[in-house]
Amino acid sequence: MAATQAKLSKTAGKPIHCRAAVARKAGEPLVIEEVIVAPPKSCEVRIKIICTSLCHSDVTFWKLKDFPGCFPRILGHEAFGIVESVGENVQDLKEGDSVIPIFLPDCTECIDCTSKKSNNCSKFQFKVSPWMLRDGTSRFTTVDGETLYHCLFVSSFAEYTVVDIANVTKIDSRVPPNRACLFSCGVSTGVGAALRTASVEQGSTVVIFGLGGIGLAVAEGARICGASRIIGVDINTDKFEIGKQFGVTDFVNSNSYEDKPISQVINEMTNGGADYCFECVGMGTLVQEAYACCRKGWGKTIVVGVDKPGAILTFKSFDILHMGKTIMGSLFGGLKPKSDIPLLVKRYLDKELELDKFVTHEVSFQDINKAFDLLVEGKSLRCVIWMDK
Amino acid sequence: MAATQAKLSKTAGKPIHCRAAVARKAGEPLVIEEVIVAPPKSCEVRIKIICTSLCHSDVTFWKLKDFPGCFPRILGHEAFGIVESVGENVQDLKEGDSVIPIFLPDCTECIDCTSKKSNNCSKFQFKVSPWMLRDGTSRFTTVDGETLYHCLFVSSFAEYTVVDIANVTKIDSRVPPNRACLFSCGVSTGVGAALRTASVEQGSTVVIFGLGGIGLAVAEGARICGASRIIGVDINTDKFEIGKQFGVTDFVNSNSYEDKPISQVINEMTNGGADYCFECVGMGTLVQEAYACCRKGWGKTIVVGVDKPGAILTFKSFDILHMGKTIMGSLFGGLKPKSDIPLLVKRYLDKELELDKFVTHEVSFQDINKAFDLLVEGKSLRCVIWMDK
Repeated sequence: MAATQAKLSKTAGKPIHCRAAVARKAGEPLVIEEVIVAPPKSCEVRIKIICTSLCHSDVTFWKLKDFPGCFPRILGHEAFGIVESVGENVQDLKEGDSVIPIFLPDCTECIDCTSKKSNNCSKFQFKVSPWMLRDGTSRFTTVDGETLYHCLFVSSFAEYTVVDIANVTKIDSRVPPNRACLFSCGVSTGVGAALRTASVEQGSTVVIFGLGGIGLAVAEGARICGASRIIGVDINTDKFEIGKQFGVTDFVNSNSYEDKPISQVINEMTNGGADYCFECVGMGTLVQEAYACCRKGWGKTIVVGVDKPGAILTFKSFDILHMGKTIMGSLFGGLKPKSDIPLLVKRYLDKELELDKFVTHEVSFQDINKAFDLLVEGKSLRCVIWMDK
Repeated sequence: MAATQAKLSKTAGKPIHCRAAVARKAGEPLVIEEVIVAPPKSCEVRIKIICTSLCHSDVTFWKLKDFPGCFPRILGHEAFGIVESVGENVQDLKEGDSVIPIFLPDCTECIDCTSKKSNNCSKFQFKVSPWMLRDGTSRFTTVDGETLYHCLFVSSFAEYTVVDIANVTKIDSRVPPNRACLFSCGVSTGVGAALRTASVEQGSTVVIFGLGGIGLAVAEGARICGASRIIGVDINTDKFEIGKQFGVTDFVNSNSYEDKPISQVINEMTNGGADYCFECVGMGTLVQEAYACCRKGWGKTIVVGVDKPGAILTFKSFDILHMGKTIMGSLFGGLKPKSDIPLLVKRYLDKELELDKFVTHEVSFQDINKAFDLLVEGKSLRCVIWMDK
């Protein structure tokens, strides 16, 4: 390890020329290019990315022609890497540390970051910015001097990236890289939504709208919590067989019921509604369906899916007042990046949290566009992209 | 007491002729008439009303020309009384018992009534019905044989009324009648919303939209919970001075800020929002304001006010997902009538819960329309109406 550190530190303080997959136009294949990664500024670290995985939000940003879509940009926000060098005022991270970048800032000092109740940092409020967190500039340029946009404060589709210390969490080096990267976003979001946001109780009934990576991570979280019934709702029947590995016990194809709303189907299946309903697609109408099949008296509807900018959710006032149901959102699963991720990692090392089944594909960096194809076609859950292969 | 029981039981099984205040037309003064109260049927008791208090919902039903408004009707649902006689299949109540009627059914047997998490009975779902709970008929007729509608399963504006056992809670006879009746609805709803639904934490900041009887009961509940700051919002400046007795520490006249939304005023006052925001008016726009000045990360918005039938609440999907706030409703303060009211009563007997300040007026039954005037004019919180005066 000492040898690695010595090797890494040769580049400290200098720009690094390396490969990155640049998104140049909305929806067009990424282009592997040589880019220049500036040294980290104050409170930043430069990370050598070992592997990165593709999350659906990357696809969303890749497709968006208008802001928050912007080009040319280095996408990617789920990754595992090794700290290559640190900027000034960095105390808790050093060269050689195993880390994962996390889009949600955690300054560790503000009222929210020091509260057990919030994961919504007040010093650095989460926003969909194409820049570095602290100074709103980029650390990436092309060899021709063209500035490249960042993505979600991470930009992991590059051999090196610069990340603010508020967006970096150390991770136990016993976790293999292609499992560590999963903690960066999707899996943590889904598992946390069940464990932390909803606090799913043993023996309860859970409905999950959308069995993508996040929905299945909710199932995994609900399974860990001891839910006795996990109902998956999707339009892709392939997801049904996959879901079984994640503890999904019942499947509902929402396209199979033209004559009645899906909430009615669930209400009939559950004799009056589920204890927890998770919306993991990002559609307002599905949130309403989730709320409608949530058990009166104590049911919780948890919004996990990201809807279109400006989307509105509507509820009947009478229902909110009278039905005893709760509506809540779950950003990054309600987890605090720096203090809660180690707890999830412990569950993984204790073989309680199962991650292998999330990784359906692995490709080399040069084949990154295959990862996009697989996800867009609904064929992959998580495709790990190895930088050195 | 034995003498009273003996006297009461003379009427058991027979119709009782007595006085009732009948609402004959929407918004017109109630008319004191002689009515006939049938004996209780199976699972019902007939109650001699000692006193009743006026809740804003009575005014709402009184004003409504169309359903759920209906006439002629005996309004009233906050009361204290003595069981005069019991129908068949009544085990837990007997003649002479001190009781309060409660609009929310509690069958004590269904999955909800036996769960600690729900107060939303499944055997008898709460609905705004003009009939008896179980058989959907009336126990009231005029001397001319005209059927009179019930109100909220209670109809306490009569010297005698018949109530289903699911709508009756025994109450410690040490509680004076003109305090006992307050537990029937408004005070329990407000105090419970703070104590049970929201579980207000010590040292927290609370905002209450609407300082009517229920809003002030929320304040009383928040005071008991140890809230350090209780901000009352109202358009009636008289309420501000009154509010101080209930623990309200800060006042905002929502008519005083034409240039900015009230949520912004609260956000500025609280440096980013309150821990708990209670909407006690029943206006969708106020629920949105409450949500908007609820602290990100952990804030709870609690809907207590009853909006118009069919009213819709709207929220931004992004806010729900990202802000870490919870939206919940509070029907009867989240309290289970038969098991939680005795706990509130204990707090009253222990001088922890203060009730005297809620009773601003007391009138005799023949002056019941004065009670309406006082409440409509915003002059009273609770006006107790004594039946024997």
